[in-house]
Amino acid sequence: MKVSVLFSGGKDSALSAVMLSRFFRVELVTCSFELLDNWKQAEKVAQELELPFYVLTLHREILEQAAEQTIRDGFPNNGIKYIHQKALEEIAKKEQIIADGIRRNDRVPKLSLSEVMRLEDKFKVHYIQPLLGYSRKTINLLIERYFIIKEYTSDSFIGAEYEFELRELIQKKYGIKKVQEIFPQDHTHSIVIKAKI
Amino acid sequence: MKVSVLFSGGKDSALSAVMLSRFFRVELVTCSFELLDNWKQAEKVAQELELPFYVLTLHREILEQAAEQTIRDGFPNNGIKYIHQKALEEIAKKEQIIADGIRRNDRVPKLSLSEVMRLEDKFKVHYIQPLLGYSRKTINLLIERYFIIKEYTSDSFIGAEYEFELRELIQKKYGIKKVQEIFPQDHTHSIVIKAKI
Repeated sequence: MKVSVLFSGGKDSALSAVMLSRFFRVELVTCSFELLDNWKQAEKVAQELELPFYVLTLHREILEQAAEQTIRDGFPNNGIKYIHQKALEEIAKKEQIIADGIRRNDRVPKLSLSEVMRLEDKFKVHYIQPLLGYSRKTINLLIERYFIIKEYTSDSFIGAEYEFELRELIQKKYGIKKVQEIFPQDHTHSIVIKAKI
Repeated sequence: MKVSVLFSGGKDSALSAVMLSRFFRVELVTCSFELLDNWKQAEKVAQELELPFYVLTLHREILEQAAEQTIRDGFPNNGIKYIHQKALEEIAKKEQIIADGIRRNDRVPKLSLSEVMRLEDKFKVHYIQPLLGYSRKTINLLIERYFIIKEYTSDSFIGAEYEFELRELIQKKYGIKKVQEIFPQDHTHSIVIKAKI
């Protein structure tokens, strides 16, 4: 049984993938709008985890819609959730079992239970969220034990999360000031440097 | 790191335990009110899974409260949830990390998110629900692959679920007719016969 895990190279999606790898043949999937080559960060982590990896190119229109939503809202949450939903749908079109790294206390880009069930019904897919039953505290316990990670702010490093191409497009269209206005300066991401598992 | 998993010997708690066993030292805990020796069913499955097992005796008063609630309601859901909450609390008093086999679509005995967080805060415990991000369909896929199970109705076999001592107490106090009135006749349980993992 193969599961395709939406993967950013960050600690949550990495832990999610490793958890699933006991029961499934795991394949890591990083989405790209071909605006940046930030997917390469995820590829490096995939190599460290020794798991197969591919890049799924998504239509630029999805990113444009997400950018418009973000500009309208003045904050990125709904735009990022929109990208995540579209990414799940694209993978669901061609795979039988899909997964991501959403945690119990995530607000973004967590789908509601009815959205989860609609996705599964519409695309006849199994959608697994292996970390949904874990608190942030418990996940940190596991991360500390099994990974070496680096934490960074969105300004200091470009990771493979959706946020970075969204920022890039908004910067191109509206300038860097708009990006600074909309995206929290102190928002941190993580990237897995080493797996100890 | 040790995790104490509330365990009935059924497919969900068994899958939950096996999932956790990659990252934690798993210990299986079956609760008993010492009214029946149905915990022995869980012990057999624990042996099959090759995981350590113990019985936690709970105060009979908890079962009595649950029975009263069940009689008042005319259905067992709230009574069973009450037992589960009390069982989690008892284990939380003496362990650092606890878990159960609650699924995404379970209604009983699922705690709400705020109840989960209250439990964690009050007892300074990590509470993991490894199956919370899995649909019943996905769990069945895993069960089929990794376990041989037997399904049975509550009338035909006595398993280690809370329900059986609750039925027993209600039968003792109010007679078999009351039990038949309150508990759905066609409610099925499962027990793991063999692990293929």
